[in-house]
Amino acid sequence: MTKPVVLLDPHPRQRERIFNAAQWERLTAMAEVVQSEHAPMDDGLIEAMLPEAVAIIGQTPLPAARVERAAKLRAVLNVEGNFYQNIDYHACLTRGIAVLSIAPAFAVPVAEMVLALALDLARGITAADGAVRAGTERYGLAGNQDAVLLSEARVGLIGYGNIGRALRRMLAGFAADIQVYDPWLPGGALRAEQVRPADLDTVLSTSRFIFILAGVTSDNQGFLGRAALERIAPGSIVVLGSRAGVVDFDAFTDLANAGHFRAATDVFPDEPIAAGDPVRQSRLLLSPHRAGGTPAAMEAIGEMVLDDLDLILRGLPPQRLQPARWETVLKMRSPPAQGGKLP
Amino acid sequence: MTKPVVLLDPHPRQRERIFNAAQWERLTAMAEVVQSEHAPMDDGLIEAMLPEAVAIIGQTPLPAARVERAAKLRAVLNVEGNFYQNIDYHACLTRGIAVLSIAPAFAVPVAEMVLALALDLARGITAADGAVRAGTERYGLAGNQDAVLLSEARVGLIGYGNIGRALRRMLAGFAADIQVYDPWLPGGALRAEQVRPADLDTVLSTSRFIFILAGVTSDNQGFLGRAALERIAPGSIVVLGSRAGVVDFDAFTDLANAGHFRAATDVFPDEPIAAGDPVRQSRLLLSPHRAGGTPAAMEAIGEMVLDDLDLILRGLPPQRLQPARWETVLKMRSPPAQGGKLP
Amino acid sequence: MTKPVVLLDPHPRQRERIFNAAQWERLTAMAEVVQSEHAPMDDGLIEAMLPEAVAIIGQTPLPAARVERAAKLRAVLNVEGNFYQNIDYHACLTRGIAVLSIAPAFAVPVAEMVLALALDLARGITAADGAVRAGTERYGLAGNQDAVLLSEARVGLIGYGNIGRALRRMLAGFAADIQVYDPWLPGGALRAEQVRPADLDTVLSTSRFIFILAGVTSDNQGFLGRAALERIAPGSIVVLGSRAGVVDFDAFTDLANAGHFRAATDVFPDEPIAAGDPVRQSRLLLSPHRAGGTPAAMEAIGEMVLDDLDLILRGLPPQRLQPARWETVLKMRSPPAQGGKLP
Amino acid sequence: MTKPVVLLDPHPRQRERIFNAAQWERLTAMAEVVQSEHAPMDDGLIEAMLPEAVAIIGQTPLPAARVERAAKLRAVLNVEGNFYQNIDYHACLTRGIAVLSIAPAFAVPVAEMVLALALDLARGITAADGAVRAGTERYGLAGNQDAVLLSEARVGLIGYGNIGRALRRMLAGFAADIQVYDPWLPGGALRAEQVRPADLDTVLSTSRFIFILAGVTSDNQGFLGRAALERIAPGSIVVLGSRAGVVDFDAFTDLANAGHFRAATDVFPDEPIAAGDPVRQSRLLLSPHRAGGTPAAMEAIGEMVLDDLDLILRGLPPQRLQPARWETVLKMRSPPAQGGKLP
Repeated sequence: MTKPVVLLDPHPRQRERIFNAAQWERLTAMAEVVQSEHAPMDDGLIEAMLPEAVAIIGQTPLPAARVERAAKLRAVLNVEGNFYQNIDYHACLTRGIAVLSIAPAFAVPVAEMVLALALDLARGITAADGAVRAGTERYGLAGNQDAVLLSEARVGLIGYGNIGRALRRMLAGFAADIQVYDPWLPGGALRAEQVRPADLDTVLSTSRFIFILAGVTSDNQGFLGRAALERIAPGSIVVLGSRAGVVDFDAFTDLANAGHFRAATDVFPDEPIAAGDPVRQSRLLLSPHRAGGTPAAMEAIGEMVLDDLDLILRGLPPQRLQPARWETVLKMRSPPAQGGKLP
Repeated sequence: MTKPVVLLDPHPRQRERIFNAAQWERLTAMAEVVQSEHAPMDDGLIEAMLPEAVAIIGQTPLPAARVERAAKLRAVLNVEGNFYQNIDYHACLTRGIAVLSIAPAFAVPVAEMVLALALDLARGITAADGAVRAGTERYGLAGNQDAVLLSEARVGLIGYGNIGRALRRMLAGFAADIQVYDPWLPGGALRAEQVRPADLDTVLSTSRFIFILAGVTSDNQGFLGRAALERIAPGSIVVLGSRAGVVDFDAFTDLANAGHFRAATDVFPDEPIAAGDPVRQSRLLLSPHRAGGTPAAMEAIGEMVLDDLDLILRGLPPQRLQPARWETVLKMRSPPAQGGKLP
Repeated sequence: MTKPVVLLDPHPRQRERIFNAAQWERLTAMAEVVQSEHAPMDDGLIEAMLPEAVAIIGQTPLPAARVERAAKLRAVLNVEGNFYQNIDYHACLTRGIAVLSIAPAFAVPVAEMVLALALDLARGITAADGAVRAGTERYGLAGNQDAVLLSEARVGLIGYGNIGRALRRMLAGFAADIQVYDPWLPGGALRAEQVRPADLDTVLSTSRFIFILAGVTSDNQGFLGRAALERIAPGSIVVLGSRAGVVDFDAFTDLANAGHFRAATDVFPDEPIAAGDPVRQSRLLLSPHRAGGTPAAMEAIGEMVLDDLDLILRGLPPQRLQPARWETVLKMRSPPAQGGKLP
Repeated sequence: MTKPVVLLDPHPRQRERIFNAAQWERLTAMAEVVQSEHAPMDDGLIEAMLPEAVAIIGQTPLPAARVERAAKLRAVLNVEGNFYQNIDYHACLTRGIAVLSIAPAFAVPVAEMVLALALDLARGITAADGAVRAGTERYGLAGNQDAVLLSEARVGLIGYGNIGRALRRMLAGFAADIQVYDPWLPGGALRAEQVRPADLDTVLSTSRFIFILAGVTSDNQGFLGRAALERIAPGSIVVLGSRAGVVDFDAFTDLANAGHFRAATDVFPDEPIAAGDPVRQSRLLLSPHRAGGTPAAMEAIGEMVLDDLDLILRGLPPQRLQPARWETVLKMRSPPAQGGKLP
C-alpha cells in the first residue's frame, strides 16, 4: 500500500529543529514526505504535488485556486506559530481542510517566562544581583521595602488563550485571586476555569499583578493606550508577554520609567531592537523575545504535529494543535516571523 | 478582672515592625504588656515581672533559675526566627511552657524567592536583561540554548520543613516530579505529602532543579561538601535558600563558576559580604539575604503571634507558630541575627 | 435595527426547562425568536423562516436541500445532547455552519454521579444502609472487609471526553493514579492532562476502579464483550456511566452477579427497564439514567446556549458548547432520547 | 548491642491487625518486644518491664506512680484511636514522654466515607437503587428534582482536625466554597488552609452541604441541639461523621424524618443499635460506624507506629501520629472502644 503524500515546507523553521531523529523516523513511516529544505518550497514542486498531498506541514501559500486543485488535502499544519495571511482560509474551511497552528506548544514556556519575569519584579532579583556586584546591596527587610508576594495576590490577565490557561494552572499553587478580561470569552467560560471575568478597567485598576497576553488583531491594535495604562494601580507589576502591538509601547516605557508601575517585556515594536533605542536603558526588565522559543517547545512541536497528522491520516479529528477559526483568523495581525526572531 | 501580664522583649526586632496599629490594639486588649523598646529588656525588670508573666514575646534569656521562678509562664514566643541557645529548653518543656518560633511566617516568602531564583536561572532572565543593556542580546531560540522548563521537571528538595511544604504547593502548578531528602522525616510522611522520599545522592545526581532548604544543625554542618556537590548532574539548577553553613560555600562557588551547574544563593558565610569578596563577581545569581524578611512576613508575624497568644490565654494549644521540639532544638546552629541582617 | 431571527425547536425538551425567566429575557433581547412549543416545529414554518434564520436552537431536520436554502444560517444549537442523524453535517460544515451540542453541560453532573456510584461500591453504602434496616449490620472493621479507598488507587478511564476531563479534576483531590484508554486521543494529549495513556487491556486488568465513559460509535459498539470484561481484575469496582451499548450488558451483569467485580450502572439496553427484567434484582448498583439530567445541568444548558449564541451573533467563535467534528459525527450511535429518558 | 525494650499491649486491637508480616519483622528488628496477646497486659509484667521500656505500644494504664518508675520511657503509642483517661498526661508530658494517637490513620477513610454519604444524599443513590428494585424508579430529570451538585457548592465543616484537612483536599477537586467553624483554630490558621473561617450559625444556615466532624469534649457535648439544627437551611445535606455525642440525636433524626434536611450518620448514641430502635427505619442514610476502620487504615497504623517509633529510637521527634496536647487531652470525651465497635 502506498503511503499518503505529505508536503514539508517549514521555512523559516528548519526541519531538524522541528523533528528530532525519532520523530523524523515516525513521520517517514506514516507518510511519503516531499520536502523543501532551507528555503520555501518551489512553486513548480507545489503545483506538481498538490493534487496528491493529504497534508502540508509548513506555511505554503494557498490561494483559492490552489485549494481547489488540492483534492485530497485534509490539513495544513503551520509550524511557524502565527496564522499567515497567505492562505484562503474560507476555501480551506468550506472544504473541511483543517488549518492548524503550533501555538499550543509555546503556552507552557511563555507562561513560565511571564511568571518568572513577574516574580523578578516582585522581589527585585535582577536589581539586587546588580547591587551586590556594585557593592550597594541592602540586606533583609531594609532591602525589601517594595517586595510583594504573589501568593494570595489579586492577579489580572488580559487575554485568556493558551498562555492564560497554562498560567492559571501555575497560579493555582499561589492561591492567587485571578480576574480575566477577554472579550472573546463569555463569563461562564471563564468561571468554568475558576477565574473571575472582569472588565478591562477593573483588571487594570485593581490587580497587583497584570499579565498582558492578548494577541494582536484588527480590533485591538494598541487598545492599551496611555490612558488605559495610567489606570493601572501604582506599584503594580506588569508583564507584557504577547505582542508589543497591543500597547502604546512608548507610554508603557514612560510609565515604567516614571515609577508608576514595575514592568517587564518580552516583545518590542521593532525586533531586533535598534542599537541606540532608549528602551535598552529604561527601567523595564528586558527579555529579547525569548519566552516561547525554547528547546522544549521545539520538541513539543514535533510531537504535536505528528500526533495530529497521525489522527488525520486515520480519519480522526486533530487534538493537539490549534485550529484556525474562520470567525477570527482574518483578524489576526501578528506578523509572521522575520529573520532571527522566530519564537 | 486584671489582664494577664505579657513581657514584650523583641530586640533586635522592633515592636512597630511586628505589630501594626490594629495588631497592637489587639495585643493590649488581651494583655497587660510590659515592654522594652529598642534594647534588650533590663535584667531588673525581667526579674521583677517574671513571677507574673503568662507569656514572653521575644528572646529574653531564660536559664533554669529563671524558668523556676516563672510560675505562671505558659509560652515564650520568639520573634527573631531562630531558636536561641539562651533558653533552658528542658526546663521549659518539662513545665509545659511552649517555646514557639515565627519561622512559619517566612515559609511563603522564602518559597516564592527560591522559586523565582530558579526560574531566573532556568531562563537566564538577569543575564538577558544585562545583554540587552549591553547590546549583545540574542533573540528567540538562538538565545535559548540553555533554557529549561520547570514544568514536568524532576525537582529535588534537600530539607523538607516549612519552606519545603510551601514550595511543594507552588510546584504542584508545574506538575513537577518532586523528590525529597530529609533524614528527620520517614518515607511515609513524605509520601503523604505527595513527594517521593529519596536518598541524598539520588536527589543530587538525578534532579534538574535542586533546592537546598535544610537548616544548620550540629549534625549536618557542611554536609554538602565538594564531593557531594560534584555529584550534581551537569546543567542542573541549584538554589541555596536556607543557610550557607550547610554547604562548602567555596566549592559551591567554584563549581558554579566552572559551569558545572547554574546556581543562586540568598545566604553567605559572612554577612554583610566583605567589600572585596570574589563572590560578588562570581557566576552565582546573588541575593543579599532577602528571601524571608518581607513586609508581608512582618504582617504575618504579628498575626501569628497574636493568634497563638489568644489561644494560650484561653487554655488552648497554639496553632500557628512552630513549637521547639526538645529532641532537636539543641541541635540547631543557625546563628541569631546580627545587625542589619534580620531575615 | 431588526434583530436576527432564531428558530427555537427544542422538542423533546421544553423551552421552560432550558431557559429560566432571566435567560428567556436575555434570549429575546438578542434575537427575534420563532418558536414551536410542545411539539416539533411545523414543516411549513421551518420552510418559511429558514432563509432568514441565523441560528436554530433545537433538533430541526436539516437535509442538504434545507441547508442550501438557509443562506444566513450560522449555527445549529442542539439542546437534546446527542448529535442526531437528521442533519446533513457535511453540508453544514462546508458552509461554515457550526453544529453544536450541549453535551458539556452534563459533564460535571455525570462525573459526580459516577464518582458517587464508585464510592458507594467501594464502601458498601447502599448495602450497609439496607443491613441496618434489616438488623443484620456489622460494625467497624468487621463490616469493612471489602472496603477500598479511592485515595492513591489506580483508576482506569475508558473514554476521555467531557466527562473524563471533569472526573479527572475531581480525582486530583484523591491523588489517584489515573490511566486512560481512548483511541481517539494521542498519548501526548493525555499526558498534557496529567493522566497516563494505556491500552485497553492494561486499563481493564490493572485498575482498581474502572469508569466506562465511552460513547457508542459505529466502531466500538459492544467492544467491551465478555472476554474483555473477564480481564478486569477480581475485586475491582466498575461503573458504567455512558451508554449500555458499549458493553455486552448480559456479560456485565453476569460477572457482577458472580462477584467477579463490583459494578454500578446508570444506563440500560432498554429504558425504561422492563417490569420483569432480572437486572432489577441483580447485584448491580442500579441508577435509572439519572447521571446527567439534573436541574443544575438544565440551568447550565440555558447559559451555555445563550453565551454561544451571543458570540455567534457578534461574529465570534462559540466557546461553550461542543462542536460536531465532521470526522466523527457520522460515527455516533447514541440514540436520540425517547419519551421519559432525556438525560 | 542490646535492642531497646518496647511493650506491646494493643488490646482491644489485635497485633495481627496492626502489623502485617513485613511490619512485624521491622518492629522486631528495631526493638525487643514484650507483648501481651488477646488480653490487656498483666500488671505484674508491666511492673517488671516498666523500668526498661523505651516505648509502649498500646493503652496500658499509666498513673503517675508508674510514670515515675518508667525512667527510660520516651513515648506511648496508643493504637486504639482515642486518648484514654487512664494515663497521667501531666506526668508524661512534664517528663518529655510523648503520648501519641493513631487518629491520623483514619483521616482519609473517614473523609472519603463522609464525602460518599453526602454524594449519595445529593443524588439519591441508595433511594434510586431501591426504587429500581421495587419497580418505582423515575428516569432522567423526572427522577432528579432534588438532585444537588457538590461542584461549586457552599460547604460547611464543623470541626477542622485530621478529617477536615483530608476532606478539604478532596473538595478541592469540586471547586467547593468551604467555610469552617472550629473554635480551637484562629481565622488565620484556617485561611492558610484556603478555607473561610465562619461562626457556627453561618455554617449552619448558609451551607448546602454540612459535615459534622467535631470530636466530643467536655466543652461541646450536645452543642448541636435542636435549636441549632433547626437553623440548617431547608434542603441541605448533613453528614454526621465524628461522634453522636455532639448532636441532639433525637432532634437530628426528627428533622431528617420531617424532611427539613437530608442526613446521613456513621455514628449512633448507642452501638450496637438496639434491635427495635426506630432510627433503623428513619429517613437517615445509615452507616454502622464503618467510616474509619478499613483494612487500609489498619495497614497505615502499622506503618505510622513504626515510622514514629523509629524516629523516637533515633532521638528525633515523631512525625506521623498525633501527639496529645496537655491543654486539650483532658477535655476529650470520646469513649474508648467497646466490643465490636473499634473504628
